Amino acid sequence: MTSQHTAPRATSAPAVVVLDVNETLSDMAPLASRFEELGASPLLAATWFAAVLRDGFALAAAGGSAPFAQVGAEVLRTLLADENLDRGLDDAVDHVMSGFVELEVHPDVPDGLRALAAGGLRVVTLSNGSASVARQLLTRAGVAQHLELMLSVEDAGVWKPAPGAYEYAARRCGVDVADLMLVAVHPWDVDGAARAGLRTAWVNRTGSRYPAHFGRPDVEVASLAQLGGRLGSRPRGPA
Amino acid sequence: MTSQHTAPRATSAPAVVVLDVNETLSDMAPLASRFEELGASPLLAATWFAAVLRDGFALAAAGGSAPFAQVGAEVLRTLLADENLDRGLDDAVDHVMSGFVELEVHPDVPDGLRALAAGGLRVVTLSNGSASVARQLLTRAGVAQHLELMLSVEDAGVWKPAPGAYEYAARRCGVDVADLMLVAVHPWDVDGAARAGLRTAWVNRTGSRYPAHFGRPDVEVASLAQLGGRLGSRPRGPA
Repeated sequence: MTSQHTAPRATSAPAVVVLDVNETLSDMAPLASRFEELGASPLLAATWFAAVLRDGFALAAAGGSAPFAQVGAEVLRTLLADENLDRGLDDAVDHVMSGFVELEVHPDVPDGLRALAAGGLRVVTLSNGSASVARQLLTRAGVAQHLELMLSVEDAGVWKPAPGAYEYAARRCGVDVADLMLVAVHPWDVDGAARAGLRTAWVNRTGSRYPAHFGRPDVEVASLAQLGGRLGSRPRGPA
Repeated sequence: MTSQHTAPRATSAPAVVVLDVNETLSDMAPLASRFEELGASPLLAATWFAAVLRDGFALAAAGGSAPFAQVGAEVLRTLLADENLDRGLDDAVDHVMSGFVELEVHPDVPDGLRALAAGGLRVVTLSNGSASVARQLLTRAGVAQHLELMLSVEDAGVWKPAPGAYEYAARRCGVDVADLMLVAVHPWDVDGAARAGLRTAWVNRTGSRYPAHFGRPDVEVASLAQLGGRLGSRPRGPA
């Protein structure tokens, strides 16, 4: 019987940590109030976000792509058309979309980013949304300096979880996909990244269960702050 | 100037009409009551269906697949876990899923199928769900005899709107994709079918708007019954 002196693959530090943005870094809870302020049910926020991803993923599966902001506004327009709103449809769509770009990060995000950076890890974002929304979000939180790159699938030509989106991130980082660890709250992102050859971490802030139809993450943490501790430091050279 | 004696491509009769099943043939409105009967909001029905498609399309974009019934139950389990239900989670999931397989067709469906069959068109179904659910639905409505085949993406290995799903239908029908017309209420299905080379018809029963991020259908009708009139009859031989 031989012994393995290497650390377990799942918890050794990757070259680059690739953070999802929407809901992984941003707290989307305030969006529900935006719907309520229009006179619609706050429950529509979850329906809207699921339908936006549904349409973006449909395009990805069929070989197309569209900007997140366009899909977001179009889905809202359909969803809100049947509601008894306190204002016109254009204004209502703007009210929700402007709420989306004004979200704040989850409370654990600043410490989490600092811990990852302190461990010597390269940290980037990869969003199905625009890079500018990610930049504004992280700048407002005062942590943009910990990010080496803020990437958007708009430059990849296809949304996550299609493999081309993750391969684009690897190219931009100048490493192999196997040197990336995708970090997300969404099981579909974890599954897609793993199929594309990345290592994966699932951030499960709410004690949720992981759906059986998606491949499991290499690492599960309850917060971004916990992730730094799990991954440890990146060695700067040979031991 | 030459004149074209053929009918316009968009409205000439295709060799085979390929009908989507969930929501295109089945009326999903009663599902909202199933959620209400559990003590949950009826609005969760729309969130659930959008999230099921989101997850199935994510798998399609990433190169995987899972049975509709499994994804449906798993998404329900996550969605209902936070609700204050009148019964246990397993029973609650069963209550919604059994409602799903007991849906009825929309009122315009029987006449629509009869009109298509009377026009000499071959008619098949292609569902992201199982073939048995489609068979039960159409048998209950007394119109199963008008369908030549009831196809499921479970045998294609990938969900619509990935091209492989439509190509599978063409193979099973023994025709080229260009000889198929996909008929659906869902713009994502219309868009995916068009990208795969099929002709398309959008059934818009609710006077909804078509989202700008998806390619437009060749034909738009307000009901399945209207479609037969738009397509006309299939010539049986050379004129």
